[in-house]
Formats: sequence, structure tokens, C-alpha cells
Amino acid sequence: MESLLATLSLDARLAQLTGLWAGAKRSDDAAPLQERLVSDGVHFEEFAVDGLGQLTRHYGTTPLDPDAARELLVRRQEWLIAHTPGGIPAIVHEECLTGVLAWKAIAYPTPLAWGATFAPGLVERMAARIGADLRALGIHQGLAPVLDVVRDARWGRVEECIAEDPHLVGALGTAYVRGLESAGRVATLKHFAGYASSRAGRNHGSVAMGRRELEDTVLPPFERAIREGGARSVMNAYTELDGVPAAADAELLTGVLRDRWGFAGTVVADYFAIAFLESMHGVADDLAGAAALALAAGIDVELPTGSAYREPLRDLVASGEVAPELVDRALRRVLVQKAELGLLDGGGLPEPGPLELDGPEHRAIAREVAEASIVLLENRGILPLAASPTIAVIGPNADHAPALFGCYSFVNHVLPRHPEVPIGFDVETVLDAVRAEYPAAAVAYAPGCDATDPSLDGVADAVRLAAESEVAVVVLGDRAGMFGKGTSGEGCDVVDLTLPGVQHELARAVIATGTPTVLVLVTGRPYELRDLAEPGGAAAILQAFFPATEGAAAIAGVLSGRVNPAGRLPVGMPGDHAPQPSSYRHVRLDAATGVSSADPTPRYPFGFGLSYTSFELGAPTLEAAEVPTGGEVVLRVAVRNAGARDGVEVVQLYAHDPVASVTRPLRELVAFARVPLAAGEETTVEFRLPARVFSFTDARYERVVEPGRVDLTIARDAADAGSIASVLFTGERHLVGAADVAQASWSRV
Amino acid sequence: MESLLATLSLDARLAQLTGLWAGAKRSDDAAPLQERLVSDGVHFEEFAVDGLGQLTRHYGTTPLDPDAARELLVRRQEWLIAHTPGGIPAIVHEECLTGVLAWKAIAYPTPLAWGATFAPGLVERMAARIGADLRALGIHQGLAPVLDVVRDARWGRVEECIAEDPHLVGALGTAYVRGLESAGRVATLKHFAGYASSRAGRNHGSVAMGRRELEDTVLPPFERAIREGGARSVMNAYTELDGVPAAADAELLTGVLRDRWGFAGTVVADYFAIAFLESMHGVADDLAGAAALALAAGIDVELPTGSAYREPLRDLVASGEVAPELVDRALRRVLVQKAELGLLDGGGLPEPGPLELDGPEHRAIAREVAEASIVLLENRGILPLAASPTIAVIGPNADHAPALFGCYSFVNHVLPRHPEVPIGFDVETVLDAVRAEYPAAAVAYAPGCDATDPSLDGVADAVRLAAESEVAVVVLGDRAGMFGKGTSGEGCDVVDLTLPGVQHELARAVIATGTPTVLVLVTGRPYELRDLAEPGGAAAILQAFFPATEGAAAIAGVLSGRVNPAGRLPVGMPGDHAPQPSSYRHVRLDAATGVSSADPTPRYPFGFGLSYTSFELGAPTLEAAEVPTGGEVVLRVAVRNAGARDGVEVVQLYAHDPVASVTRPLRELVAFARVPLAAGEETTVEFRLPARVFSFTDARYERVVEPGRVDLTIARDAADAGSIASVLFTGERHLVGAADVAQASWSRV
Repeated sequence: MESLLATLSLDARLAQLTGLWAGAKRSDDAAPLQERLVSDGVHFEEFAVDGLGQLTRHYGTTPLDPDAARELLVRRQEWLIAHTPGGIPAIVHEECLTGVLAWKAIAYPTPLAWGATFAPGLVERMAARIGADLRALGIHQGLAPVLDVVRDARWGRVEECIAEDPHLVGALGTAYVRGLESAGRVATLKHFAGYASSRAGRNHGSVAMGRRELEDTVLPPFERAIREGGARSVMNAYTELDGVPAAADAELLTGVLRDRWGFAGTVVADYFAIAFLESMHGVADDLAGAAALALAAGIDVELPTGSAYREPLRDLVASGEVAPELVDRALRRVLVQKAELGLLDGGGLPEPGPLELDGPEHRAIAREVAEASIVLLENRGILPLAASPTIAVIGPNADHAPALFGCYSFVNHVLPRHPEVPIGFDVETVLDAVRAEYPAAAVAYAPGCDATDPSLDGVADAVRLAAESEVAVVVLGDRAGMFGKGTSGEGCDVVDLTLPGVQHELARAVIATGTPTVLVLVTGRPYELRDLAEPGGAAAILQAFFPATEGAAAIAGVLSGRVNPAGRLPVGMPGDHAPQPSSYRHVRLDAATGVSSADPTPRYPFGFGLSYTSFELGAPTLEAAEVPTGGEVVLRVAVRNAGARDGVEVVQLYAHDPVASVTRPLRELVAFARVPLAAGEETTVEFRLPARVFSFTDARYERVVEPGRVDLTIARDAADAGSIASVLFTGERHLVGAADVAQASWSRV
Repeated sequence: MESLLATLSLDARLAQLTGLWAGAKRSDDAAPLQERLVSDGVHFEEFAVDGLGQLTRHYGTTPLDPDAARELLVRRQEWLIAHTPGGIPAIVHEECLTGVLAWKAIAYPTPLAWGATFAPGLVERMAARIGADLRALGIHQGLAPVLDVVRDARWGRVEECIAEDPHLVGALGTAYVRGLESAGRVATLKHFAGYASSRAGRNHGSVAMGRRELEDTVLPPFERAIREGGARSVMNAYTELDGVPAAADAELLTGVLRDRWGFAGTVVADYFAIAFLESMHGVADDLAGAAALALAAGIDVELPTGSAYREPLRDLVASGEVAPELVDRALRRVLVQKAELGLLDGGGLPEPGPLELDGPEHRAIAREVAEASIVLLENRGILPLAASPTIAVIGPNADHAPALFGCYSFVNHVLPRHPEVPIGFDVETVLDAVRAEYPAAAVAYAPGCDATDPSLDGVADAVRLAAESEVAVVVLGDRAGMFGKGTSGEGCDVVDLTLPGVQHELARAVIATGTPTVLVLVTGRPYELRDLAEPGGAAAILQAFFPATEGAAAIAGVLSGRVNPAGRLPVGMPGDHAPQPSSYRHVRLDAATGVSSADPTPRYPFGFGLSYTSFELGAPTLEAAEVPTGGEVVLRVAVRNAGARDGVEVVQLYAHDPVASVTRPLRELVAFARVPLAAGEETTVEFRLPARVFSFTDARYERVVEPGRVDLTIARDAADAGSIASVLFTGERHLVGAADVAQASWSRV
């Protein structure tokens, strides 16, 4: 390593710290702010003459045939080996949040759907499968998972997040990291940190937040995914927190990440984030100044393409204004990672042989995640839906395949610029799936309205169809897109949380026919359902968060009862006219207390979800009612499937510290257990909760467990009264050491 | 002082730290959370046997005749002198934000209207008049002004704030303090600190904010009102900031307020805020714990009634758990203030003689503030409105006197519980005032709709009336109330910023008649006007922020041209579907940049307002283009009344620091000059801007002026491109000392 490093010129060193987005076109691929920075027309061999740190979005920029793209990639890597200093191939990175962003590669459900599964093992298997595909394609680094904790439902990127609860985000995000890293791929945690808390829910908006909220809500999933999951890369957030851009925040990128958490991987810039220090944040005069700030703060690699970290940074180093040691600090991290990936030893190139990006294993996992993620919100006796001679399938999302996918799927991220190109793999729409699920029924379809257009012209046809049918299935929701081109997704922020366009009116009109109506929501965020969810509204409501390739069959399976729904809401569904931002994990002041006419109470709370069977939860019992502040709480609860069908219960354990040195959430999820139970089966779940689970940032900004009572509630959801067991923490205030990373665990006993 | 103090028992000392709300009734006067704490049925002489620190809301609780109430007050004070330890009368405090909260006392425009005047001298005169009334009534302390900087238009208490700009809030708030204190009254700054930034715009919501935003946006008006205005009391905010309730925040109440700013007055609790440390914030086990926290943090006086600071605190002092020195620290502050007020020397009781709470001087000031506050937003050639044979006056706020007042007026704060009691002084409605303004015209009236009721039944009559008339004046807006009983005011928070009820629909229907329509908005917050403000919408739009007693005549005067409007928006009027929170004083990330579909651009920006004449602003010139970081910037600009009418221009000077060590607002108001100019008159305004004006909290959390360029823009409003002069600050980073309180000033040269 050091001998290799010694052979590299300054230009060659800097080249290792930068990416190249070779296929990007100015007008196509760049976000609105980024146009002038894309390397349109750059010649690969010319740009990479001194070497290349990263190849950006080789597969995910335009619809290239994966086999041909793989061949091109091999040629480029071989050229780098043959013609550049040290002969070092590039790290190839790609988006992979919902599957690898490559044409013809299958897409999986969006992270909110993972959240709804409450199933870390399943998410880990999905990520391992994604990792295997990355490996096969010669991609080393995946730009996932998103560990931002949802704080504002208006934000367009909610769909890319896992949940509004940091414990759930940490558990599932870490599972994803474990899966991806198990395939030898580098997982990239993003966006570090605070991005989801942007002001007014606006993408890139500045963040107003104190240190304590940052420490106790935003950072924990990142710490866990690094320490427990072994993530090897972190990407900065575009945002600024209280005046300090994340890309220039040494306290965050070095102090917290490396000094406190011991992170040894690379920190990569979110696309153009270094240049933004000049153009968007105004903390640098020019690209050189931006480079100096970012490098000193701890950004090791500039993405997508080198601009600041090439000539501008070279000039600063040459003139002595930036210490060469800072360049080498970043370079060592990059080279260590390349060594780990085998890139310094002739390895790490794409695997030869036939590519399978949409095989039976892919499909099985996609189906399993989709089925586990669907949340049954309301069931007024209609579901499961018996085979019905006439079913009206209605709604703009009923027969439109892209509506099933999130904004980081190839179909919605890349293909909108290539309307002539097909999705590249088979996808059933909900209409297709209902027809397949009910082969004997007469299934008729009317869109009713567009997803966003205000025209009500199609409603009459839909109403007529519903009136003639025995049941109506109304499929509504979002269209994921980028920068205002969708109703959900990056840059698609909203103010109003009612369904887009006139979809609410359509549903109301169908319900008014008197035909029992099942509402199927296929969305990227939670919406306000108002009257649709009231008695007299929909007969049943299903919530699917972009369930992707196998999502339609999963929905149809829940409708028919082939699948017993087990999803639980990872984000609360807002009440009527509920204000944002909001989170179930709030202090008492943010509850409905009567001093504000703006009621934050959700219609369906975090953790809520129905089943076709019923579960009984016993009273929780503590192994010991008093536990030292540094000790472990052991809590047991019986859970029984009291119904006639097999099913899955998600046992949720919430904590509340009624008196602390700082204000604490009324409830926070500290553990959960997803428990499959056969009809009639009973088991006991034992939670082991090390003290650290109850720690928080106290009045002195130290992470502590304070002595005193903590109420532990076993509840069906965040708003359910549930059953309480109170533990008394005894002894002194317990300072949680930086090395203490203990997490809750559970088992059946 | 010390000898007096030495004579007091512990009970007597604590009694001096507490109030008594003698007339309050459990069900009437308390906010929702506070019911169990009101001293219902408490007997004055029994409660006050050890003395009494404060008498709470003697005049402002129920509609007492002021003369009779004054007599009762004298008797109570004389009883305290005769029968309690040390013979010390109580400080009598009362709300006085929009005039003294006493029945029959005139009410003045709400603080947003002061903001719209941009006229510190006028606000100071108003406050001096209020102070004189307080003195006449024997009230020593007024619970005003509110110095919260507006951050979220959804919040119900926006109407109680002055502006969204801290410089404007500081200038006008300090003027108010100066006026009140000139009458020997104690001004109380509230709410310290952060209250207006509550999460989701919900009253009492927790505040997410970093230290830098607190220092640069929230605190400056308080510092100025103390150091320049001489305010002698501060009231804590109900809120908590990043987990720390303001009432228990020693860093804020002692560190910032006393150690840094040298404040020597009293800190009083907002009503029930000490008990809330237990019941709402969960940082204390019981009232005793709450008392200990609040006392140590720096709350000197418990209001409205002593609960925590009496028995619970006594027991802690008696048992040695709370140091008696902390009690005496607070007690000395209280006694110093009582001495200043003459209360220790037989003075400070109500003045004898006839009371005049609604005399010609009151009326003249109320009229002057109202006239200066009305903002002309749109004028498509219709205003001033020539005498017209037929005028249709329409709208729920056209003929309803309480609609002219804010929620801290007696009529809206107290009288809703006493529907049989009249306002107590004469108030013209807008309908009355239009009739008086146009004696020869046929003025007809139709309400059209209710302020909040969704019924459209009245619209047809209004449309018919409009169609028959030559012009329609449609008067819409808010009804101020408390805790959900109004559309604006304390606890009346909203999610949607369109006009309440179906008022928008009413206006649209009237406009659709084709009759030229003048929209008159009488509101407590800025609303989204959407199509009403577009071409083809209203022919003219006036914005009045609760203009109070003389407001209707002021509105009619602007309609007729008797008054040339000179108000400027103290808060931007939101654009269509604009998200909240928002502020013009934002960093670049919070501007419309294309990466978010949620557009924050206001329809009418902060500082905007039209006139019946036109003004020309010259290019700004700097006395020196380079100024040392510790120096003074002198900028001059010519301003000319280019029209045919006398008028008033508000010259606005904004600063922007393009490159700083932390991100800075794209624009912030650093100075303004309200310049009356006769038709054709020209003058030159000279601004003197000491360096401190350009200081901010830098990356090291120090208040500095950084070297480098700062752009100074003379503009008509916050969105106007205006003319720029750039100053170069030279030399080293200049650390602003705690003693440096220099402010901008201006003069005509």
C-alpha cells in the first residue's frame, strides 16, 4: 500500500479521489442545480489518464443492455490497469436501493415497504441477492441504504426511507447493509446527516435541529449500520444543519464518524455536493475553496465526476495551501478499500458467464418482501374477498406498471427519458393480478381519472362500472418520479397530504354507489384519507408502499386471502388536516393537548396493521422489577394466535421515561419481534434489553441511562394503550461508553 | 432593602415570589392545560397572609367597571400594606399588548399592524399612551411586547408578533418598550425564547433549532429591547428547545440574559409554566422539583398564582434541598423592582381622579397607527375609489366589530365568556365607515357567508348585490379567539393557509360577476390568495392586520384616498401551495432552486406595499467602499416622490454576505427609513451601519464580522432586485464584544 502510494504523483493521487460519470448527458441526468457540472462529452481515456477513483453509474445512466455494458466495463477497467499510474481499476458504484439500477434487473419494494415488514432477516436476504447481482455486474459499491428517519410526510424522498422510527430504521437498515456486505459489496449509508428534516419538507431545505435531536433520532441508525452492519462507506447529506453544510462538517464527518464510531471506510460526496459548498451554501469562494473545506472535513471521494478534487485542489496542494497529508489521508482510505475489493490484485472485475438479473430466486424474494409489506388498514367484513362474479377494478394505478415502483427503480429513474424503451422484465399490474387471482370472475376496468390531472371526465364511467359490479377495487396513489415529474420521489415534495389529483374525489364517487369498495393505496408516502376511511367510506383499505415487480400479485393475494396480511405501518397515516412535520416519537408538547387547534393525531398510527386472524398479547412480565442503570432488562410476553388462520404478529415494545433531565418521547419503540404463529399457537417472546437501549443525550450532552422508573408497554401500535410493566433503574447515572453498542434482542422461550 | 429582607420569614419571602389570580374561575379563564391549577375560590386575604408578590390580571379577567375595579385594587393594596410582613404592596400586572386589557379601555392595532407601519416613533407613542393608562389604573407591569420572530404562518399567535424579520421586531419592539417604560411601567418581553418556531406551527409545540439560529434570529430583539429599550422584565416561553424547557434553562435565563446581557430585572413565569415542568415536560417529579428547577434556572416569580413557589418550595428550602440564597436572589430582584416602582415608599397605587381610557388622544393614536398599517397589495386602477352611487359591501368581516381586534383585546379575550356585556366603547365596522366615507352613495350590505361555517347559502344574495352595484368591497379574514375558538390567536393554529371557511369561494363568486371588486383582508396572519390576486381577480387588495378601534375608518380612508397607504408587509403573503415554515430571511437552500416541487416564493414579499403616489430610489453610494471589520458603513441613497400626492416611502436596506464561514441568509434587513415626502419632494437618506450590524454567529459560535464583500441592496421589498452597493470589509475577523450594542441609524441629509 505505502509503496504503491509512493509511486503516485499528485495528479494520480487526486485522480483516485474522484469519479467520472462517463455516460451522463447534460440535459438528461442531472438534477436541476447540477447541469453545469455534469461531464458531458468528456472522453473517458482522456479524463482517466492519471487513473480513476470511481466509475459513476455505469449501468444506471441510460438503458444499456447489461451484457454489452458489462463488456464495456471490463474494457475500461483493463484500460485503467494497463495505462494508468499503479494500474489501479476504478471502484464502480451504482444505485441499488430497490435493486441494482441496471436495465432488465428486477426491482424490489421501496424501503418504506421494508419498514412495513418489520422483518430484518427478509431484508437481509433481499440485500444479499442485490449484492450478488452487483458482484456479477462488477459493481463494487452500492449507494444504499437510505437511513434517514422520516420526519415530514411532505418530503418526496419519504419513499426512500424505511420508517419514522430510528430503531426500526437501524434494525432494517443494518440488515440491508449486512446483506449487501455479505456479497463483498460496499454499502453506502446515506444521507449523513439530517437530510430528512429539511425545513418545510422541501428537498435540500436547510435543517433546524439541536444536537440532542441529532444524536438521539438521526444518528443512531448510522452508528448501528457501521458498528453492527459493517458498512464501509458513508455519503454526506446535501443539507446544512444550523448553518453548517454536511459536506464541510468536520465534527460530523470526522469527529462523530471516525473518532467516536471508529469508522474506517470512505466518505463519498453526494453528487455535486462539494461544488455546492460554493454555489448553494456560500461557504467557499470557488471550487478550490470548496475542495479544501470538504477534504479537511472528511470527504474522501468527489462524485459523480472530479471537478473540485482535480485541478482546483491540485493547485492548492501545489501552492502549499492544503497539506498533502490530507490528500493522502483520503487516498489511503480509498486504496484500502480497493485492496479489500481485490482491485489491487487483479480481481474485482465483473464475473464472467451468463447474467441472471431476474431469475426465480429474485422473483421469490421480491414476492416475499411485497407480501410481507402490505398493510391492512381497514376491514369492515369484506376481506378476504370471496370469488365474486363481477369485480370492478378502478383507478389510475390499477393498470399502470410503473406505478408499482419507487423513484430509484430503473423504470422511474431512467426510462422516463427513454419512452421507447420497455421496462425490460415482466410486471403484472394490479388489474392483471386480480384477473389471475379470480379466473372465474368477470373483472372489468375503468381508470376513472388520471393520477394527477384535475379532470373528472372519467369518473362517470368508473361510477357506472362500480354500480354494475358486486365489488369495486379502487387502486390509487403515487407516481414516483424525479424533480417534480412525479407525485413522490426525489424533488417531488408536496404541501397537501390528500391523494394527488382528483383521486380522492374518484374514490368518494365510487363509494357513493353503494357497491362495497376496497381501497388499494400504492404510494410512496402516507396520505390523509379523511372520509374515505370513516364508517360509510371504504369497506376495506390496503396500503402498499411501492411493492414493485411482484407487488400486484401480493396485493391480489391479500384481497383473496391467499396471503394473510402482516405488514405494519412504518409511518403513521395522517389524521384530517394534520400538520407536518410529525412523528409518533414526540414529546408531550407535540401531542394533542388542547392548546392547539392543529391536531397531530394520526388516523392509523405507526405500527398499525390488521390480520385475517386475531392475536392475543399477555401482560408483560419483568425478570426483575429493579435493574441497575448499567444492567439488562428482561421482559417476557405471551402471544397467541386466537384465530383460525396462520398469521404473523409483530410484537412491539415501547418505552417511556416519565421523568428525565431532558424531555423524552411519550413513546419510543425499543424492540419488536415478528412472530409467525399457526392458528391456535401460543408462544412466549423474551426481549433482552441492555441498558444502552434506554440511554439518551442528557442535559450535559452525554449519553446516559438515568436512574428512575421507565414504563415498558407491549402494544399493537404506537397509539394502542397496551399493557405496561415498569422497571426501576437503580444506582447512579450510567454513562454509556463509546464502545458499548449493545442492542435489544428477542427469542421465543 | 437588606434590612427589609432580613425581617421576612421564609414564607413571607416566598410569598413575594408568587402571584395570585384572584378573580379567575376554573372553567373560564384557564387554557386547556391549566384548569387544575387556577386558584378558583381562593380567598384573597387568606392567600396573601404572608404578603403577595404580584396581583394577576386584576382588570383583565372579567368585565369589571374600571372605576370599581380600581377601588377594589386600592383596598387590596392597602390591606397588604396594613396586614402583611413588611407592608409591601403587590406588583399588579396586566396584559397590554394591544392596549390595557380592561373593560372599556380602547384597543390598538395588533403587533403585525405595528410591523406594517415600519414606524418606531409611532409605536413608542402608542406604548407611552398605554403606559399612562396602566399607571392610572395602578398597574405596574404590562405583559408586552411579544418579541417572537414569525417563522411559521400557520401558528395562531402570529398576530401577536411584529414581523418575520428580527431587525424590524427589534426596532419596533424596543420602541414599544421605550414607550411603556417612559410611563414608569415595567415592560415584559416575551416569550423567551423560541416560542414562534414550534414544530408544525402548533401552539406549545417543541422547538427544533440549533444555537446559531437561536443567536442570530430569535435572541437579537430581546437583547435590543433590554439594552436599548430598558425592559425590566422577561417572561419565559412555554416551549422546550431540543429537550430543554425554557423555564428550566439556566443557560438561557441566567447565562444569556444576565451574565451576557447584564439584565437586572425580573424573570416571570408564563402562566403555569413552572407546574408544566412536571405535567407537560416531564423534567420534574412533582411541583417541588419543578420549583427547584425553575428557581435555579432563573425564574424569579411564579405566575399566575403561587403553587410551586409556596409550600412545595418552602419544604425544599426547609429541608436544605434548595439553597435559601436562590430564594433571596429572586427576592432581591423583586424588591428592587418594587422599590423602583415606589411600592416600598407608599407609592405606586392607582392614581386618583377620573379615568380616561378612551379619550381623544387614545383615538388619535389608534387612528394614526391603523392608517399607517394598512398595506395596499394590488391596485388595478380602481383605487382611490371615486364616490360611487352604489357600493356593495360584502363579507363576514364587513359588519362585525370584534373582527377588527386581535386575540389579546378585551373583546376577544374576555368578552366571549360574557356575551351579554357590550364592548364598552364605540367601534365602527367597515360597513359603518364606508357609509360615513361615502355619504352620498347607496351602500348596501350582504354578509355572503359566515367567517368559518361551510355554508354557501348566502353567496347568491351577495352575488346579486354585487351584480347590481358599481363596485364591491369584500371584507374577509379572521376572527381572533383563544384555543380553537377563533381562526387566529393563541391556540388557533391552522394547516391550510387559504382563508377560513368558504370566504375564498365567496370572493371568487363576487369577482365573477364582473363588478370591480376591492378585497379588504382583516386578518391575524398572511393568507394564500391564489386566483383572487391574479389578473382577472380582485381589482384591488388591501391588507389590514387587526386594525382595531379606528381600523374601519382607516380602511375607508384608504379606499377613498383620504389616506395614502404607506404600510409595508411585515410578513410575506404566501404563494400558491407554499409550504411552511417559511421566512424571506432564508439561506439559498430554502429558495426556489428547482430541486423541490414545493415553491416557497411568496405572492407578496416581506416589505411590499403600494402607494397612491410613486417613489424613485437612486443608486446607493458608499462613503467608503472598504471598511475595517470593526468600522462603520455609511450609505446614502436619494429618494424622490415622483407622483402628484404626498406620501410615505419606506426605504429598505438589505445585506447579503456571499461567502462566509457559515451559510448566511440571501437577504436580511439591516436598516430601514420611513420617509414622508411631499409630492415632488426629494431627499437623501443616510444610513450609518456600525460593523456589528453585519455580525453573525460564526463557525466557532462567536459573534464576528468577517472580512470580505457584503452586498448592500436598496430595494422596495425583500424580493425586489433593487440596486446594490458592495462594501469590502477589510482586516481581521472582528470579534463583537458583549458590550457592543451598536445599531443602525439613519437621517435625512
